[in-house]
Amino acid sequence: MQNIKVFLNEDEMPRQWYNIAADFARPMPPPVGPDGKPLTPEMLAPVFPMNLIEQEMSTQRWIDIPDEVLQLLWQWRPSPLMRAYRLEQALKTPAKIYYKNEGYSPPGSHKPNTAIPQAYYNKKFGIKRLATETGAGQWGSALAMACKMIGLECTVYMVRISFDQKPFRKIMMQTWGAECLPSPSDRTATGRRILAEDPNTPGSLGIAISEAIEDTVHSKNTRYSLGSVLNHVCLHQTIIGLEAKKQMAKIGAYPDVVIGCAGGGSNFAGLAFPFVSDKMAGRNQLRFIAVEPAACPKMTRGKFVYDSGDVAMMTPLLPMYSLGHAFVPKPIHAGGLRYHGMAPLVSHLLREKLIEARAVQQLECYRAALLWAHTEGYIPAPETAHAIAVAIQEANRAKEEGKERTILLNWSGHGLMDLSGYDAYLQGKLRDYVLPEQDLQASLASIADLPKPPALV
Amino acid sequence: MQNIKVFLNEDEMPRQWYNIAADFARPMPPPVGPDGKPLTPEMLAPVFPMNLIEQEMSTQRWIDIPDEVLQLLWQWRPSPLMRAYRLEQALKTPAKIYYKNEGYSPPGSHKPNTAIPQAYYNKKFGIKRLATETGAGQWGSALAMACKMIGLECTVYMVRISFDQKPFRKIMMQTWGAECLPSPSDRTATGRRILAEDPNTPGSLGIAISEAIEDTVHSKNTRYSLGSVLNHVCLHQTIIGLEAKKQMAKIGAYPDVVIGCAGGGSNFAGLAFPFVSDKMAGRNQLRFIAVEPAACPKMTRGKFVYDSGDVAMMTPLLPMYSLGHAFVPKPIHAGGLRYHGMAPLVSHLLREKLIEARAVQQLECYRAALLWAHTEGYIPAPETAHAIAVAIQEANRAKEEGKERTILLNWSGHGLMDLSGYDAYLQGKLRDYVLPEQDLQASLASIADLPKPPALV
Repeated sequence: MQNIKVFLNEDEMPRQWYNIAADFARPMPPPVGPDGKPLTPEMLAPVFPMNLIEQEMSTQRWIDIPDEVLQLLWQWRPSPLMRAYRLEQALKTPAKIYYKNEGYSPPGSHKPNTAIPQAYYNKKFGIKRLATETGAGQWGSALAMACKMIGLECTVYMVRISFDQKPFRKIMMQTWGAECLPSPSDRTATGRRILAEDPNTPGSLGIAISEAIEDTVHSKNTRYSLGSVLNHVCLHQTIIGLEAKKQMAKIGAYPDVVIGCAGGGSNFAGLAFPFVSDKMAGRNQLRFIAVEPAACPKMTRGKFVYDSGDVAMMTPLLPMYSLGHAFVPKPIHAGGLRYHGMAPLVSHLLREKLIEARAVQQLECYRAALLWAHTEGYIPAPETAHAIAVAIQEANRAKEEGKERTILLNWSGHGLMDLSGYDAYLQGKLRDYVLPEQDLQASLASIADLPKPPALV
Repeated sequence: MQNIKVFLNEDEMPRQWYNIAADFARPMPPPVGPDGKPLTPEMLAPVFPMNLIEQEMSTQRWIDIPDEVLQLLWQWRPSPLMRAYRLEQALKTPAKIYYKNEGYSPPGSHKPNTAIPQAYYNKKFGIKRLATETGAGQWGSALAMACKMIGLECTVYMVRISFDQKPFRKIMMQTWGAECLPSPSDRTATGRRILAEDPNTPGSLGIAISEAIEDTVHSKNTRYSLGSVLNHVCLHQTIIGLEAKKQMAKIGAYPDVVIGCAGGGSNFAGLAFPFVSDKMAGRNQLRFIAVEPAACPKMTRGKFVYDSGDVAMMTPLLPMYSLGHAFVPKPIHAGGLRYHGMAPLVSHLLREKLIEARAVQQLECYRAALLWAHTEGYIPAPETAHAIAVAIQEANRAKEEGKERTILLNWSGHGLMDLSGYDAYLQGKLRDYVLPEQDLQASLASIADLPKPPALV
């Protein structure tokens, strides 16, 4: 009989988040305004509560997790560390494959790890309502749940095409009491202007972000909430890696390679950062792979630049790998990986060559996801399938090299709300896609006039 | 900080199933043929493998769980025993509410607890393929996963209206490699006959059962599999209650009342039977409530009779509470509770007054489900909502009586595949329904000519 899962006792549970910014040998460039001048906390105050702005800018290594937040996270945490024995057997690999199963949370992904603390800090700051945007709905549903449990109202601007075509995430948000609007909506000036121009627009994440921010700055007691990219979001997700370290230590294991998919970067960050800390402290052989879709290759083909987080440039300029904020990826089923930029913290690690990035094609991901479902049982989210595909690549390499290798991946969520993608794959309707170089260059050219981040010294 | 969850160490995990038939003071009536004569094992052999027929007829108290089965069940077992603190607070009740969270399995319900062993025993017996029926798809998807993991082919006859209207469970089955056919299909004589009569028929569970059995008896190396009702199915589900007993013992707790929803009876049986054993051994105050929908009230308004398991009377006659096998319940969203009969083992306990039955209306269930989602986070399946509704009734009673009372309920699965029911409820489209007495009597009259079970002596 093989031990498949590792849990933690209550006294072993992490009580602090790990802030990787404290350990950088060279500091990250700061976020700046359109004039290239560093942002001050006050400039963010209309959008975020000051307690979260402090976290966003903090370089303190450990930050206490409030008891009220822990109490809610414990509803499904610690997520089990699991060993994928049956996948290993199917691959005939000498590698050991471990994964953190983040699919046990109520909405089925890692997103509540930051939704709960974000709702908590806003509530504590006296805020009554959060506004946010969502694409396929994974983030919107997590924030809806968090707001209901903490006691805030919640308004979600959901990209119209998803709102119409994927009604189930919308119903999930409504079940948790959130107001879910198709974006563009008639609630904001931005939405009304776009609807006037094109009443049948499918909407976009860029539009939805603009609407949520406009709603925020024009409403009383309202703040904006983002599900990835930002420093405090990555911070909250480190509970995954902190648990994983303790769980692996319990069975005398340690990874050789840590893998996560990366859309905005927070689920990769959450698992990887506590281990990157070991690498920065001298464990030089340790490897990290952030996996992105070939259709949205910001880390492998984008540039390290100052760029805006949204199409309408309502956010500050962030130092990050980007394809240009006007980039529109081809529709792939991993909706959570279709963002044009990468979290500044993750971007900094990539620039410092502490981590690697790898792009994979959609069909390889679905093949990997199916093998996973057939061996481990759980059906992964299409985003998660990207991490699985690279874990399989690494396991096969271990086999070729005849080396035992310990692989740790972030199984960021289940795919039970994403079955239409599986259907399209099984019916042979999906295709791989290579982004043409001229399209990439055209998108990057559109941000050529923005301020440039300083060179690494 | 409150401890929310209880797990088990590997050496505490149950290694045997509990067979309640060993402990009955008075034996259950045996299943019989249309002539009223007791069934022999050989008569079931074309439909089930002999190793499962032995379990079906066994009166041995403890039955070893094979290591290969345990290894697969451990993928998500033990299911956590959780305390619903936030629900208790919302109800302002002195009652303690515990629940077994069966939603962590890959298809999201308790069904794999029996799908895995059924696939295992069939494989061991040399069977190559399983055929089954499914309504909304919870059972079909669990068996599809089990067959893929064990290495069997799987054919699922899915009620056509669900096949067309609820495509996601179908895709789940296909993702796990099963063939999923809309029933009636052209694969069987029964299906072809019904399609010829009415090409637009929505199908029914009764038709789908008939097709799956016909497929089985006319195919090589094929057997039939059922997801509830039968003794061996209830047996496999006792792992839930055996875990719960050990988990409660770890924190020094013991229930005053045990609650489960009951469609065919297996999830209620799974949690309750190991505790019923204590009641039979003298713990007289312990109560059990099997919860059924008011629209399908077999236990509270049906009769204890010999009745067939399917509309076409292809199954033997089982001693059970039934509404008559021709009974067609009104469409309610808890598709898993729309069966006309109740597991003979559960029926026997009800007849012996060892357990109670209670019927609840649909609207009360959705109200309870929403309160649960708002406090505990998890969105329950509509079936599970029935158990929650009665747990809330009991918690409110404890409050009125000013008594601390320990409630244990089986949280049989999540509702992420059932969100259209929530949507209908939130839009005010659902109604309560009372089964007219004359409809009930008409349905019962149609089985008046069947053999009668002997009186309790």
